[in-house]
Amino acid sequence: MRLITYRTSGVAGEGYTDGTGVGVMVDDKQFIDLAKHAPNLPKTLRGILESGTDWQSRVEKAVKGKSADNSIDNVALDPVIPNPQATWCLALNFQLHKDETGLERSQYPELFQRMPSTIVGHNQPLVRPRAELCKRYDFEGELAFIVGKRGRYVSEKDAFAHIAGYAPYNEGSVREFQLHNRQFGLGKNFEKSGSFGPWMMTADEFGDPYKQYIKTRVNGALKQDTQLSEMLNSLENIVSYLSTGYEIRPGDVCAIGTPGSIPGTTKLMNVGDVCEVEITGLGTLSNKVIAAD
Amino acid sequence: MRLITYRTSGVAGEGYTDGTGVGVMVDDKQFIDLAKHAPNLPKTLRGILESGTDWQSRVEKAVKGKSADNSIDNVALDPVIPNPQATWCLALNFQLHKDETGLERSQYPELFQRMPSTIVGHNQPLVRPRAELCKRYDFEGELAFIVGKRGRYVSEKDAFAHIAGYAPYNEGSVREFQLHNRQFGLGKNFEKSGSFGPWMMTADEFGDPYKQYIKTRVNGALKQDTQLSEMLNSLENIVSYLSTGYEIRPGDVCAIGTPGSIPGTTKLMNVGDVCEVEITGLGTLSNKVIAAD
Repeated sequence: MRLITYRTSGVAGEGYTDGTGVGVMVDDKQFIDLAKHAPNLPKTLRGILESGTDWQSRVEKAVKGKSADNSIDNVALDPVIPNPQATWCLALNFQLHKDETGLERSQYPELFQRMPSTIVGHNQPLVRPRAELCKRYDFEGELAFIVGKRGRYVSEKDAFAHIAGYAPYNEGSVREFQLHNRQFGLGKNFEKSGSFGPWMMTADEFGDPYKQYIKTRVNGALKQDTQLSEMLNSLENIVSYLSTGYEIRPGDVCAIGTPGSIPGTTKLMNVGDVCEVEITGLGTLSNKVIAAD
Repeated sequence: MRLITYRTSGVAGEGYTDGTGVGVMVDDKQFIDLAKHAPNLPKTLRGILESGTDWQSRVEKAVKGKSADNSIDNVALDPVIPNPQATWCLALNFQLHKDETGLERSQYPELFQRMPSTIVGHNQPLVRPRAELCKRYDFEGELAFIVGKRGRYVSEKDAFAHIAGYAPYNEGSVREFQLHNRQFGLGKNFEKSGSFGPWMMTADEFGDPYKQYIKTRVNGALKQDTQLSEMLNSLENIVSYLSTGYEIRPGDVCAIGTPGSIPGTTKLMNVGDVCEVEITGLGTLSNKVIAAD
């Protein structure tokens, strides 16, 4: 099952309004409007995930036998989870990307955070910072997982039971600001500098993540092409480590780090470029880059 | 004016319920219940700040001539803003603390983030991580400011107009995890490892922050005693830098970094300790340390 967060009115990032809803895809375009067929379910995907670990069977029951109500071409897509309590991101989780940066890493997941307002949905514009602020605005094609079940001190063995689903993620980065200090801070948190979508695919439908590939393209040219099995810290290890200190919660998002670029290419995004992050077997997140006002 | 976020039922950090409210202090204990006297105002302090830049005059009008309704001894205090879109924290913003850590800094504010669930209110217990996870659980006494007015590309000259008020902040840190990698990540985000309160004092009442001192005590013994004028990046510089990339929003929180410790003392907090962060002219945040379950 693939779920979207969509908007027919209001401004993304400004909180929920009557114009916001959750849809269940029936193909790559058409979706069933959950609010219409299951008015008793919470109105947000985070709310649905928080409503109990049987959320998936309740949603499946609500949409069973229903026909599509609308197309994603008629609505704006928001980030899959527009308002997580936490978005955790990993640095340096693929060897080639680590080598590109020249930075050191330890055996532990290297974690930082992004704020909700820095992320847009599928087909929404990414905003390149003003030219005088930054020469190096880069894509980072990534897989994100979405937490479906609360947990603390989760073992690696139990980790997958806490993952509700997956989505492509573009962890767009403003390199000059990222490198102002040891902490990446602001360089990872420019307004509308990253994206998350188009949908969350449930874990059962996605299957084994390690069989799949991250493929990132700019204007159709392939820039990243790496199998997820090359992750240095595994999904199981990330969930377990994170939950040592932090209680993972339904709707929390974790972007697992970007692979290296294909040799001879860069990660740069310029105004007018279209950047696509494909996770094979899952979907493709596409965004055009516009200039900051 | 001093404003609190309090709770008479429900669980802190689990979102708002009917048991949560905003109070205006009449002395160090007694408060006026805003929901009673101004039912048309939003029910949260973040909501009030978001309701317009004239929020302060509306609140002052609502409580004018009213008597106290309750005492903070009869309620639980939540973090001043329990659910900010962002909590930004500064590393290494006082010379002596920088020297203690042996880390390098640049001329830019060094920023990282904390998630809401890692922070408790005044008089609520701080949770020391399990002994097998951590030997070094440290206080960091800090001043926090709360954003009252949205802004992007704010000049240093205009910065103070964006600050609604101030509160003491204990940016409790789990050192082993903080030092696992370059990014502080999880070491700054253990559940209930920091605190924020007791109240927000409005900027007009606090006056010149640089005249005041951060004084941190553990079981009454003075551990930090530094004037805020010793900040390396000023409040004006922090607001201006942050808003270069990020649109600061009403209710956003920024903890401006901790000073060094008094020579010969440490920042350690152990189970049973009471840690107090006083900002002179503003108030004292007090928390007892309990063991993780």
